[in-house]
Amino acid sequence: MENKEGIIGMYTAADGTQWLSDPEERFGFRANWKVNRILHRVVSDYQEVAVVETEGFGKTLVLDGIVQTTEKDGFIYNEMIIHIPLATHPRPSDVCIIGGGDCGAAREAVKYPSVRNVDMVEIDPEVVKASRKYLPEVAGSGEPDPRIRFHYEDGTAFIRRRRDAYDVLVVDSSDPVGPAKVLFERPFYEDVHRSLKEDGIMVCQSESPVFHPDVLSSVHRTLKDLFPVVRTYLAAIPTYPGGVWSFTLASKKHDPLLEGSERLQEDGNRYVNRDLFESCFRLPVYVKERLQKR
Amino acid sequence: MENKEGIIGMYTAADGTQWLSDPEERFGFRANWKVNRILHRVVSDYQEVAVVETEGFGKTLVLDGIVQTTEKDGFIYNEMIIHIPLATHPRPSDVCIIGGGDCGAAREAVKYPSVRNVDMVEIDPEVVKASRKYLPEVAGSGEPDPRIRFHYEDGTAFIRRRRDAYDVLVVDSSDPVGPAKVLFERPFYEDVHRSLKEDGIMVCQSESPVFHPDVLSSVHRTLKDLFPVVRTYLAAIPTYPGGVWSFTLASKKHDPLLEGSERLQEDGNRYVNRDLFESCFRLPVYVKERLQKR
Repeated sequence: MENKEGIIGMYTAADGTQWLSDPEERFGFRANWKVNRILHRVVSDYQEVAVVETEGFGKTLVLDGIVQTTEKDGFIYNEMIIHIPLATHPRPSDVCIIGGGDCGAAREAVKYPSVRNVDMVEIDPEVVKASRKYLPEVAGSGEPDPRIRFHYEDGTAFIRRRRDAYDVLVVDSSDPVGPAKVLFERPFYEDVHRSLKEDGIMVCQSESPVFHPDVLSSVHRTLKDLFPVVRTYLAAIPTYPGGVWSFTLASKKHDPLLEGSERLQEDGNRYVNRDLFESCFRLPVYVKERLQKR
Repeated sequence: MENKEGIIGMYTAADGTQWLSDPEERFGFRANWKVNRILHRVVSDYQEVAVVETEGFGKTLVLDGIVQTTEKDGFIYNEMIIHIPLATHPRPSDVCIIGGGDCGAAREAVKYPSVRNVDMVEIDPEVVKASRKYLPEVAGSGEPDPRIRFHYEDGTAFIRRRRDAYDVLVVDSSDPVGPAKVLFERPFYEDVHRSLKEDGIMVCQSESPVFHPDVLSSVHRTLKDLFPVVRTYLAAIPTYPGGVWSFTLASKKHDPLLEGSERLQEDGNRYVNRDLFESCFRLPVYVKERLQKR
């Protein structure tokens, strides 16, 4: 199935240069990345999995034509989705990651010495294979930490079978289209709630507050119905459209705004530090207003 | 000179739709915006001044093919470049804005009741004319506040003649190419320093920390040589490449980190609130490291 032609969204310009176009069609916006090399393309049971080398951001993982993570800025997303919940929990031991096939989130999670077990539930083994082979800058090189266990199955089915199992559950999904759509809906969040221990915390990526404010506010509202503590935070991710991305943390007990940043593991971080642990929750007026609307 | 053909960076796609392409050539990145209508184009003595209506961000001011401000997100830049220094100064009275032809910065400045005079020094009257006519969402509608005085001349020459004149000086420039290049260099900052009162504050836009970290660190270093207090802050601006933008504040006395946010005018703001006044100075690891390098 290896085929270096026809990656979704790629085109050749009049001058012969190759480009990858990542569109937000509803907004008439297209981010175009100049591609110097195609490293990998495979069509899995779920999607087209490609790795290309872009001029600006180096090796780039692309699923069905949508940029997922890059050599140069992948650390921002992975640090933000992991360190905020893990530093909020006083002693995270059992962690589950739904999605996260680029392996970068799992790699950050094992920086916390209290973590004994990371269940990584990724539906598509081809994403893990491609990331480990071509993107060690994100996935890490060599054998993965033995605390990480890979489960190649549907995250919704996996989590439905778990009770009081996790301290922290991370929904590291792609956009709410196709297979990832259910990961943004209430039945899934109810299962997540049951899968968490009595002081458990979940976090999900909740899309762009600029391009998808409807997704962000719907996630926030649904989680508010289920958890006593719900906090949205932002990060600046250059390769995501609009450059600003939201995450939403929902917690049965611990509140990041009260916990402080003392437990944050900063070693080797390139984005998150203690300052950011506190400031990422401070939202601009337009985001705050959107979350307050019901 | 009105001509609706040939706006720099615009092209027609195979399906007949029109697009504006805003490139960061060194990074092989092009942000393409679908254009529904061309509202204005004039070639002034300095540049091509155009206003187009984009599908995603509404009316958009474009100078020599580079997106400057839009109906939908122009408020972010203008609030951030004005409210941070004006709320840092205990009683700003005399304000100077170099550039800022879209008039949005001046409009924010007069929200501070202590402000008696805003000298707006824009080299190109065509930018002011186009913004006031086509972009009232940014420039404001009706007659400008009488405290704003327009000076259509070279900002460097203007500021060279001033001594102890301003409480706050704002360098609201375009990118450091062409006429704006000198606004990023030491001789200009020395003149700015002299033009400020003994507790004066200046702020400038210091480009993208992702695409132009060299500009940011050079501005930061130069200002450090001249002012005792230098603080870089960030904002998330969706239509600027990479989505995250830096500003650098340099002050003879007042430090925003010590002043607190009590004087911030929040009325009608859509981005800046008190939370952000404090958190915008908290920088990710990779930006901090860049600024610490000499």
